[in-house]
Amino acid sequence: MRNFNGIVGRRFGLSFTFRIQHSTFRIAMSVQAIAWSPSGAVRIIDQRALPDAQIERDLENGEAVADAIRTLQVRGAPLIGIAAAMGLVAGTRDLRGARREHFLAQLEALFVMLAGTRPTAVNLRGALDRMMRVARESSGDGGTIWERLHGEATAIWEEDRAMCRRIGEAGLPLVPSGTKVLTHCNAGALATGGIGTALAPIYLAHEAGRRVEVFVDETRPVLQGARLTAWELAHAGIPCTVIADAVAASLMRQAKVDLVIVGADRIAANGDFANKIGTYSLAVNALHHGVPFYCAAPSTTIDPALPDGDGIPIEQRAPEEVTIVAGRRIAPASVAALNPAFDVTPARYVTGYVTDRGLEQPPFGDGRPRG
Amino acid sequence: MRNFNGIVGRRFGLSFTFRIQHSTFRIAMSVQAIAWSPSGAVRIIDQRALPDAQIERDLENGEAVADAIRTLQVRGAPLIGIAAAMGLVAGTRDLRGARREHFLAQLEALFVMLAGTRPTAVNLRGALDRMMRVARESSGDGGTIWERLHGEATAIWEEDRAMCRRIGEAGLPLVPSGTKVLTHCNAGALATGGIGTALAPIYLAHEAGRRVEVFVDETRPVLQGARLTAWELAHAGIPCTVIADAVAASLMRQAKVDLVIVGADRIAANGDFANKIGTYSLAVNALHHGVPFYCAAPSTTIDPALPDGDGIPIEQRAPEEVTIVAGRRIAPASVAALNPAFDVTPARYVTGYVTDRGLEQPPFGDGRPRG
Repeated sequence: MRNFNGIVGRRFGLSFTFRIQHSTFRIAMSVQAIAWSPSGAVRIIDQRALPDAQIERDLENGEAVADAIRTLQVRGAPLIGIAAAMGLVAGTRDLRGARREHFLAQLEALFVMLAGTRPTAVNLRGALDRMMRVARESSGDGGTIWERLHGEATAIWEEDRAMCRRIGEAGLPLVPSGTKVLTHCNAGALATGGIGTALAPIYLAHEAGRRVEVFVDETRPVLQGARLTAWELAHAGIPCTVIADAVAASLMRQAKVDLVIVGADRIAANGDFANKIGTYSLAVNALHHGVPFYCAAPSTTIDPALPDGDGIPIEQRAPEEVTIVAGRRIAPASVAALNPAFDVTPARYVTGYVTDRGLEQPPFGDGRPRG
Repeated sequence: MRNFNGIVGRRFGLSFTFRIQHSTFRIAMSVQAIAWSPSGAVRIIDQRALPDAQIERDLENGEAVADAIRTLQVRGAPLIGIAAAMGLVAGTRDLRGARREHFLAQLEALFVMLAGTRPTAVNLRGALDRMMRVARESSGDGGTIWERLHGEATAIWEEDRAMCRRIGEAGLPLVPSGTKVLTHCNAGALATGGIGTALAPIYLAHEAGRRVEVFVDETRPVLQGARLTAWELAHAGIPCTVIADAVAASLMRQAKVDLVIVGADRIAANGDFANKIGTYSLAVNALHHGVPFYCAAPSTTIDPALPDGDGIPIEQRAPEEVTIVAGRRIAPASVAALNPAFDVTPARYVTGYVTDRGLEQPPFGDGRPRG
């Protein structure tokens, strides 16, 4: 397994503290959510099993990757983009001897399947489009195209790692020592190829020796906050407290929250953004209580073709995600449930946007280069 | 089992519709949450098992009643008041032959135990104080006092049934046909001796043939909305849809909610009130979106001795209610969780109060008779 941390053999995070002279330095090792397997499959942590079990899966073909994205084994807008790009590569390993036309036709079929897995995140489509462009622009037969695709998928991953770091640096001034941050869902290492988006400033603040406390919304219905964010923060040694989503407002009223940072699945040109259901409620409460509310995301999450949030498609997921928890039915079988996976937060609720380009304000549709 | 509906043999609700000439009348039978068993024990539905199983338990003594209240087998501010009053009676059945001093000493011990089960609801303490006053004012020995207590507990229950009905009548004008109501937690038949508080106007609107739809907040962590409110509404044939708590704001933004009605565990003289955690977030969102927000409760829930909400004690429950769902741990074992059972909503968020005295506005500390 390739390891970009340069530290051998550790896959799950831990935190070292060592003292040089009179200063304390911490290296907060965040978990690595995706990798190539030695045979070239896409190796993931099955996020459905966390925090109970740490299960790695090698996804050997495009179907397995599509299934993993669809069933939330892999989730988080940046990570599913990376996974899909890597899926195109893993899924065409056996076609390296194929003629160009055959290779491209098979690749196109994989593209259609992967692009259809989840509708809201722009990164998924962005990464797949980029891979297809490279394939079409490559000359030669299967073997040559495949090598280019492998390089491109790895580049997408590496760029994401670097982008996370830049987001962290841009957001670091928002997190002085003693800050109590509230976050929703998981926009951390488990959602990206690197140290996350919303959590990146928190990781870097911790690394810089600052005292940070994190309130983690459990994030019903899929509980990504309780299961994933709390898990990766605990692994990095960052103090955190899980709360039911509806507790956040009450904490803000008691002045126990200094800052809200959330991720984004898609940002419109005017700054409206889609993120995990519940984000909008937090935004309303943050505005009402005067708590700064930031959206952290790679600049690739901005969709300049989309004027505002009304155009963002909202994925409706199965009602059973709400009505069945841990295998037990929690609502009568005869009763309906509504399960929108995302909501849209209008730009006027957002104090600022933390991207790899720095702290930003909309409108974004300005033609600046986007990573 | 005594049955105040006058309908023999039905314990769980169902809805009849029958047509006379050209009009449609519905009798919405709500569930009956508490009763005397034939032997004089307190018969309850174990609400922890809902909606999977409908388990009745006969609580034979004061300890069993205290345990049932503490472990949420019986919950809902009015219902725990009734259960505690009935617990004093069931727990002293064997002392009917005792001398006055011995009976009163044993009763006092039961009182202390039952009063300590849950700190937030005023009804619990109110019902217990009323029972103790009756006991002290009764002349004679155990047998005589016990008969008075039995009559008083039954009166508390019957008054609650009548009070629910009056709350329903007071709130009925708020629910014209076609209304989409959002509610939180369970302030229904399963929380009272009658047809509930927040749900009472909904039951009566349905009974009057009006079309009502209810969005039910699942109400983490204990899921009283998904488990109990959805169950009792479905049994009465009232259309309802379960949502994760954080979905409510998004529905309000889409103008899909006409009215929010919630219950209350304690109301201060100025109108500030404590209710299930998450109520305050709903109130902020309702105000922000211009959705009318009503608090429905028996007038006995008003605590005239309490000037405002700052004086309401907030019960902190075990973190495991958040971190363990249906027996499965959903957050890492090493991570803390915060679990306040209630929050306080200041009066300025509340459009009006629906009580057995009608639609009211604070201040309430006006010396009017309270039920």
